[in-house]
Amino acid sequence: MPELLVVGSVALDTIRTPFGKADEVLGGSATFFSYSASFFTTVRLVAVVGADFPQAHLDLLARRGVDLGGLQVADGPTFRWAGEYGYDLNEAKTLDTRLGVFADFHPALPDAFRRTPFLFLANIDPELQLDVLRKVERPRLVALDTMNFWIQGQRDALRRVLAKVDAFVVNDSEARMLTEEPNLVKAARRILGYGPRIVVIKRGEYGALMVTEGRFFFVPAFPLDAVFDPTGAGDTFAGGFMGSLARAGRLDEAALRRAIVYGSVMASFTVEDFSLNRLLRLTDREIQDRYQTFREMMRLDD
Amino acid sequence: MPELLVVGSVALDTIRTPFGKADEVLGGSATFFSYSASFFTTVRLVAVVGADFPQAHLDLLARRGVDLGGLQVADGPTFRWAGEYGYDLNEAKTLDTRLGVFADFHPALPDAFRRTPFLFLANIDPELQLDVLRKVERPRLVALDTMNFWIQGQRDALRRVLAKVDAFVVNDSEARMLTEEPNLVKAARRILGYGPRIVVIKRGEYGALMVTEGRFFFVPAFPLDAVFDPTGAGDTFAGGFMGSLARAGRLDEAALRRAIVYGSVMASFTVEDFSLNRLLRLTDREIQDRYQTFREMMRLDD
Repeated sequence: MPELLVVGSVALDTIRTPFGKADEVLGGSATFFSYSASFFTTVRLVAVVGADFPQAHLDLLARRGVDLGGLQVADGPTFRWAGEYGYDLNEAKTLDTRLGVFADFHPALPDAFRRTPFLFLANIDPELQLDVLRKVERPRLVALDTMNFWIQGQRDALRRVLAKVDAFVVNDSEARMLTEEPNLVKAARRILGYGPRIVVIKRGEYGALMVTEGRFFFVPAFPLDAVFDPTGAGDTFAGGFMGSLARAGRLDEAALRRAIVYGSVMASFTVEDFSLNRLLRLTDREIQDRYQTFREMMRLDD
Repeated sequence: MPELLVVGSVALDTIRTPFGKADEVLGGSATFFSYSASFFTTVRLVAVVGADFPQAHLDLLARRGVDLGGLQVADGPTFRWAGEYGYDLNEAKTLDTRLGVFADFHPALPDAFRRTPFLFLANIDPELQLDVLRKVERPRLVALDTMNFWIQGQRDALRRVLAKVDAFVVNDSEARMLTEEPNLVKAARRILGYGPRIVVIKRGEYGALMVTEGRFFFVPAFPLDAVFDPTGAGDTFAGGFMGSLARAGRLDEAALRRAIVYGSVMASFTVEDFSLNRLLRLTDREIQDRYQTFREMMRLDD
C-alpha cells in the first residue's frame, strides 16, 4: 500500500538565476516533494493541472511509481510561476504568478487515498489543508508547510491547521513572522505551543534545525561548490524527510534525525540544477554516499 | 610551563545594544582570548595598555593564572573602542576607535615566552604578527586571526603571515573578502592553498565550520533565548579552541573537532552578558554541561 500522500501544487516554472534561465520547466511543491520521496517509499499525489500540461512531465512522476490517481486535469491553464534569484540565492523575487486552474483547486481524495499512513500538506490555502484533514482517516504522521502569503492573510486558519498536525516544516523568516518573535529558539518553542510536536526550521545555506519537546537537532547544508537554482529545495527536503520516516516506519528521535539528514541530502541535489533535472539522474548510491558525508561532517567523536 | 601564548589587544569598550549599554568595560582580543583559554590551560599574554588602565582588570586576568609578564604599560591612553549593535546582532557598527598606546604597539616577548607550544596571533597588524613569528621558537601550533581592515589595507603582509601559520580563524564575510570568492566552500579551499592546513570559519548565529584537507566539520551556535552582546565572541571562541587543543596535547581530527565545540561553548557564554561578565561567574561544570548539550544537538545515531 502506498505510504505517503501529498497535497500541493504542480506547476510550470520560469526561472532566472545569475547562472542561467529556464522557461516553463516542471515545478510545484507536490512535484518536488513526491519525486524526492519516491526514492524512499511509494507516494500518492493530489493536485491539479490544466489541459495544457505536458504528458511527458506526468510520465516522469509515474515512472517513479507516484500514484497520480488524485491528479485533476481541469479546463484552463496550469499554474505558472516566474521568479528570479540574485547572487544571494537565499530568496526568490517573484516576477509573475498565474494561478490558472490552481485558483479553484479543491483537493479531491480518491477513496483509496483516505487511508495513507503519512500525509504532507504542502503549501496551499490553510482552509484547503483543513479540508484535507477532514477527509482522511487519522494518519500516523501529518506534516505541514505554508508560506508568508498565508501567514499574513490567513493566520487564523493556519493556526487551526497547526493545532491538528504533528510536524511543521517552515523557513526561518516564516517562523519569525508567524510568531512575531525575532529569536529563533523562542519562535520554535512558541510554535510547539501551537500544536505540532515537531518543528523543522529550514535555514537555506545554513542548513536546518529540528525542535522536539525542547530538544534541538542541527544539520548543516551540504557544502556545495555552486548552488545553481534553489527552487524546490524546501519541498525536496520535506520529501526526503517524510519519505525516510515512511520507509523507517518509526517516529522516535533517532528516526526523525536521520529523516532530517535525508531531507538535507535530497535538497542538496535539487539545487545543483534547474527543476527536477538533478533528481532525474540521481541514484540510490549517490543518496547513500552523501548521507555518509553528512554523518562524517557532524561526527564529534571517532 | 605555560602552554599558550597570545599576542593581541587589551582595550576599554563602550557598547550599545538594544538591550543596554556599558561604558569603558574590559575588552580587547587578547583579554577575551586569554580569559577563555584559562579554563583549559595556562596562558601568557603579550599586549599593551596605557597608564590609565585599571589595575582591577589586570587582577581579574592574574587570578585566572594568566601570565602578564609580556604586558607593556606605556605612556598615554589605553586603546578604546565604541560600538553599537542593532537587533541584528551579527555585525557591530563602530562609533569610535581611539588607538592610544596601541598605535605604537610593538610586541616584546620576554625571553621565557619564546618557547610556548601554542601561539595565537590575535587581530593586529600582519607586519607585527610576522614580527612575533620571527621571535618565537617554532611552536607546535600557530593560529591567526585578522579583520577586514587588514584584508583591505595589508593584503600582501597578511598573505605572508598566512603562509607561515597552521590555522586561520576568520569570519565568513572576511573569508569571502580575502579570497574574493562568494562561495564559502571555494573560499575555504582557496585559503588552504595560502598555507594553513586548518581553516575555521565563524558564522555568528549560524555556528562555525572547520575545513582540513577537504574534510568539513560543522558546529551550530548554541540556541540561546537571548544574545545580549556579541562583543568578544570570536576571541572567546579562539580561546576555547586553542585552550582545548593545548590541554589535549593532540592535533588529530578528533581533538580539533572537540576544540571547535569547546570554542563554541565558550563563545555561547560570552554573548550572554557585557564584557567578561558571564565568564567571570562561569564554572567548569557549566562548560562541561554545555559541551554535552552540543554533543546531543549534533548526534545522528543513538
